[in-house]
Amino acid sequence: MTVRVAVAGASGYAGGEILRLLSAHPGVEIGAVTAHTSAGRLLGSVQPQLSAFADRELVETSPASLKGHDVVFLALPHGQSAALARELEPGTLVVDCGADFRLRDPADWERFYGSPHAGTWPYGLPELPGVREELKGATRIAVPGCYPTAVTLALFPAYAAALVEPEAVIVAASGTSGAGKSLRTQLLGAEVMGSMSPYGVGGGHRHTPELTQNLSRVAGERVTVSFTPTLAPMPRGILATCSARLRPEVGVGAAEERARAAYEAAYGDEPFVRLLAPGQWPTTAAVLGSNTAQVQIAVDPDARRLVCVSAIDNLTKGTAGGAVQSMNVALGLPERLGLPTNGVAP
Amino acid sequence: MTVRVAVAGASGYAGGEILRLLSAHPGVEIGAVTAHTSAGRLLGSVQPQLSAFADRELVETSPASLKGHDVVFLALPHGQSAALARELEPGTLVVDCGADFRLRDPADWERFYGSPHAGTWPYGLPELPGVREELKGATRIAVPGCYPTAVTLALFPAYAAALVEPEAVIVAASGTSGAGKSLRTQLLGAEVMGSMSPYGVGGGHRHTPELTQNLSRVAGERVTVSFTPTLAPMPRGILATCSARLRPEVGVGAAEERARAAYEAAYGDEPFVRLLAPGQWPTTAAVLGSNTAQVQIAVDPDARRLVCVSAIDNLTKGTAGGAVQSMNVALGLPERLGLPTNGVAP
Amino acid sequence: MTVRVAVAGASGYAGGEILRLLSAHPGVEIGAVTAHTSAGRLLGSVQPQLSAFADRELVETSPASLKGHDVVFLALPHGQSAALARELEPGTLVVDCGADFRLRDPADWERFYGSPHAGTWPYGLPELPGVREELKGATRIAVPGCYPTAVTLALFPAYAAALVEPEAVIVAASGTSGAGKSLRTQLLGAEVMGSMSPYGVGGGHRHTPELTQNLSRVAGERVTVSFTPTLAPMPRGILATCSARLRPEVGVGAAEERARAAYEAAYGDEPFVRLLAPGQWPTTAAVLGSNTAQVQIAVDPDARRLVCVSAIDNLTKGTAGGAVQSMNVALGLPERLGLPTNGVAP
Amino acid sequence: MTVRVAVAGASGYAGGEILRLLSAHPGVEIGAVTAHTSAGRLLGSVQPQLSAFADRELVETSPASLKGHDVVFLALPHGQSAALARELEPGTLVVDCGADFRLRDPADWERFYGSPHAGTWPYGLPELPGVREELKGATRIAVPGCYPTAVTLALFPAYAAALVEPEAVIVAASGTSGAGKSLRTQLLGAEVMGSMSPYGVGGGHRHTPELTQNLSRVAGERVTVSFTPTLAPMPRGILATCSARLRPEVGVGAAEERARAAYEAAYGDEPFVRLLAPGQWPTTAAVLGSNTAQVQIAVDPDARRLVCVSAIDNLTKGTAGGAVQSMNVALGLPERLGLPTNGVAP
Repeated sequence: MTVRVAVAGASGYAGGEILRLLSAHPGVEIGAVTAHTSAGRLLGSVQPQLSAFADRELVETSPASLKGHDVVFLALPHGQSAALARELEPGTLVVDCGADFRLRDPADWERFYGSPHAGTWPYGLPELPGVREELKGATRIAVPGCYPTAVTLALFPAYAAALVEPEAVIVAASGTSGAGKSLRTQLLGAEVMGSMSPYGVGGGHRHTPELTQNLSRVAGERVTVSFTPTLAPMPRGILATCSARLRPEVGVGAAEERARAAYEAAYGDEPFVRLLAPGQWPTTAAVLGSNTAQVQIAVDPDARRLVCVSAIDNLTKGTAGGAVQSMNVALGLPERLGLPTNGVAP
Repeated sequence: MTVRVAVAGASGYAGGEILRLLSAHPGVEIGAVTAHTSAGRLLGSVQPQLSAFADRELVETSPASLKGHDVVFLALPHGQSAALARELEPGTLVVDCGADFRLRDPADWERFYGSPHAGTWPYGLPELPGVREELKGATRIAVPGCYPTAVTLALFPAYAAALVEPEAVIVAASGTSGAGKSLRTQLLGAEVMGSMSPYGVGGGHRHTPELTQNLSRVAGERVTVSFTPTLAPMPRGILATCSARLRPEVGVGAAEERARAAYEAAYGDEPFVRLLAPGQWPTTAAVLGSNTAQVQIAVDPDARRLVCVSAIDNLTKGTAGGAVQSMNVALGLPERLGLPTNGVAP
Repeated sequence: MTVRVAVAGASGYAGGEILRLLSAHPGVEIGAVTAHTSAGRLLGSVQPQLSAFADRELVETSPASLKGHDVVFLALPHGQSAALARELEPGTLVVDCGADFRLRDPADWERFYGSPHAGTWPYGLPELPGVREELKGATRIAVPGCYPTAVTLALFPAYAAALVEPEAVIVAASGTSGAGKSLRTQLLGAEVMGSMSPYGVGGGHRHTPELTQNLSRVAGERVTVSFTPTLAPMPRGILATCSARLRPEVGVGAAEERARAAYEAAYGDEPFVRLLAPGQWPTTAAVLGSNTAQVQIAVDPDARRLVCVSAIDNLTKGTAGGAVQSMNVALGLPERLGLPTNGVAP
Repeated sequence: MTVRVAVAGASGYAGGEILRLLSAHPGVEIGAVTAHTSAGRLLGSVQPQLSAFADRELVETSPASLKGHDVVFLALPHGQSAALARELEPGTLVVDCGADFRLRDPADWERFYGSPHAGTWPYGLPELPGVREELKGATRIAVPGCYPTAVTLALFPAYAAALVEPEAVIVAASGTSGAGKSLRTQLLGAEVMGSMSPYGVGGGHRHTPELTQNLSRVAGERVTVSFTPTLAPMPRGILATCSARLRPEVGVGAAEERARAAYEAAYGDEPFVRLLAPGQWPTTAAVLGSNTAQVQIAVDPDARRLVCVSAIDNLTKGTAGGAVQSMNVALGLPERLGLPTNGVAP
């Protein structure tokens, strides 16, 4: 069986990455590739890296152009998915890489996005307890944000095992593709090379409520997060450095062993999360272009904190790879199908 | 049928890339992975990007450890392949990523490498006229150098069509992985980031005789090259900017059309060389992690020169991908098997 | 009056930067430039960026070669300063860029460095309350570590104003020159470009006790720090993202205003610390090559934390610039002399 | 004496660099800093690296705002200088960093810029034979393009000494600040990091006629150039790799010695050009932020070519530094005043 797939927003970074991954997926056939301002252009000129699709023409994104596919990936600017999704056939699997359907609490949505809440779809992070089951057979999937993917994978086993207090401090560094193909001065190469810069400091980043939602779900209590994203001088990758105080009843001496057991339990059977050997730390280079999340933990005895670090490729596991993985789960395909676990390094 | 493959020198950059590619190759099974100073270590700590092989142990490189495989890839420092190759079974396909067996003229070898010539093996650049046939059924293959791959693909159709004079000027920029995992001050990150630097200027680089050999073979006369390699602040990739004077009988007005026809003839059916649409230029980012070479040409009417530019990933098409492609040809497998054509970009 | 200055360790990154700064300092004359393995070489080949000193010969580092100078800068590997310093004339101003004399508590030194404590010198961070006075007329100065400079400047006014609790969480990203000219695989350009990687996680980094010492001094109580350093793909620069819980008695509503007042009070007259306008955030690019620290703060109302960010050039304000600034203070010269405040950007 | 200086276009990369350099220049006082779309903003928010001028307000670029200065630097988009310059007082020294007044031949201007030729001003490259004298007392100066600065310094002594044929082949790599603060997709950080890309191939770059003009002036005959610029993944710097055939009468054996003598004669007394010691090659990192051009040469005996390489910082020696240097010459100030020769490295 081959499923016929459309990619809406194929001119952007996420759309391009979806196509790159699908080109190696043995169970799919590429149908429509759509865009808005680039409609009418050949993919070879808009996405020069996609040699295999160089002669494909981008067509206008619309319900009509997306009709007749088994799966539609939406890789659109935030706020555009909801309207389009309403027009798509109910039986089609719609995998939305935008934010529109990630949040459960309408108040969170309205506070951070300033528009009416469109709804909540099953959440495309199969590693999160209970989620893989929710995805099986789903016809609508909200792909997590890139930061929430990295942070949730770094932290949730510690909350699942009740090892840490419900106040997490997170500093994450992202490659600049995370900001999309936006023409802004601060994203110019001359500005970003050689530069680390924070943004959305003080709780303002839109991924903050998604972090709280994921960790609270696992912890069974509200987890507040202090989240500071930073732009790093690299095209891709997220390194999330997360920590939280050990609960008072968790002894410092035993904490590392207990934490390692919790992470091994969470990730022992996961195809795309690799808990590194003790002493080895995640790097964004090691996961480039792969769907792998590398995770490592350490206990800081003086500060009585558990430090949890993860590295992902923001465009692969953080967006397009997570989307394809969730599609595989939803359709009952082998979860690994078409998804590389080896990074392109050095 | 599955072929059993060993990789000698699996701790280095080329060896790691061979393993990355083979992990997606449906026709192979990985046998021994060997190293010298890293023997005894797990691949997961030496090549952290190879999640799929993290638990494999590196064993000592030796004829014994490499015995019993259908294919042996040698990714060793120059000068070490020859001695080892002599010990390998004649029926084994040996694909050498080193320089030992690339040159035909013993005098060239001795002048540039300062040691006795070990011999000449079939040359693993299937795109070069006549070479694909030589590779079919071969049991010994010399993989081209990374620069010669980029430069030869950029220039040979111009020589095949007798458009340019036998004096080529080449300036190529390479990512620093091209220098291998060598511990030298000038390869430290703090030194290379933000820096372009030339080396081997004045004809001293060891790839020079290989360039002359390839272009002369196609031109039917001796082609001299002025070759200046430079290190660029990127991990991977080669951009080769090559030019030569138009022959006196080639009119400037018709030169571009004639050249385009020659390149289309050379590459129209090639799976891994993409002549870009007019006006679009190769970039190293667009071929990252892929086996694709992007090529483009232009005529400079004032200088009466044909300028030919190519971009490859030095570790993929320039080494490991070229090696796997040649293996496919030698074994009679589909040439594209296991080899991505889409780059990891942005 | 011109002071005669020697630089010991002039072949390394810190030594080179000291020479770059001194070349623009109108009050100094360069005497001996010394090294160990590079002794006998010309500075032009070892530090190719120092055109103004290209013909200077590096001499062996020794008490004899350093004799007869008014000021001696020590830019040596940790642990080498103490022995050498004992041999230098008491009247000479010795400015040590190493760690040997930074820590006050011998137990801290022994725990983190594993050797007997050599002593404590006046601390070369004039911005820290009370320190500028200690430096005036000093003949021995311990230059702070690069991370402690960035972190202390980001956080101390919050502790001086008793706004936050004595548990700080710090994640800092450093350019790879912070690791010095060490020949280690993980510092190769091919490894670091495109990569963010943490190290010393869990409280193991040697700058941790220095952070605790500085913040505790200002807070008047012991401040514990959770410090995670990361390597960023850039040659220079530190971005320190620091946060701590607001004290219970500090209302979230008034916190930002109170914090801004505290930082303005601390830095209003400082020549080298620039509290940015509200909404603007520090970047490492903006301080490249300058002695400026950029600082900004924000209150996260949900997490009830004050987030404080600073950016410095690790080799300038973080090492060589801090050293020259302290020399100026010690000698009674204008503090700004020879020190650029404008960064080299983009 | 202090000269009062205005900078028009102070919001751009060149304008920012002029201000950085002038801030260390003891003979100038900064007057108006002007911009167009950024008029009304504080310099601290537009040029965050210029801490020393953070509180200066950008005023609208106009003849009125530029009036009453001894020197006016124009750092405007090409084509805007000419109209403005006509309105400035004749006694004011106007130093134009744009292209408008660089070319002597109106036909060249019209062919490459497509508009009427505005005229020709004294050319701000004091190292070019005869030019320093032309600049003394000048009130109008055309600052060379960044590529022409690098290429001319690499090549002209070879032409002055009649060592090479009048056909030069040039491949140059530039940091992306060379393209200015333009909002174009191909200049985004995510696109340029990890990427080398050519542009203007085949003689189309607007600096081509300037190269021909400079080299022909020295050679005494028309020199054609094949010029291929490439964008490199770094913010700043140009590495120019240039070569030309040795004249038939120049023996290969003696060529290197003759060439070295010619370059030593040309640059022995130049404050800002450093012919490196034999065997050492220019790097862009070594000249970052400095007004130094590093130059090196080699003879390729097989190709019978002289290869000449130079490295500059495109914004310093290539634009702003060259502008300040020319101002110094024009005003009779010491040529080195305010101009660093040491680079910011690593």
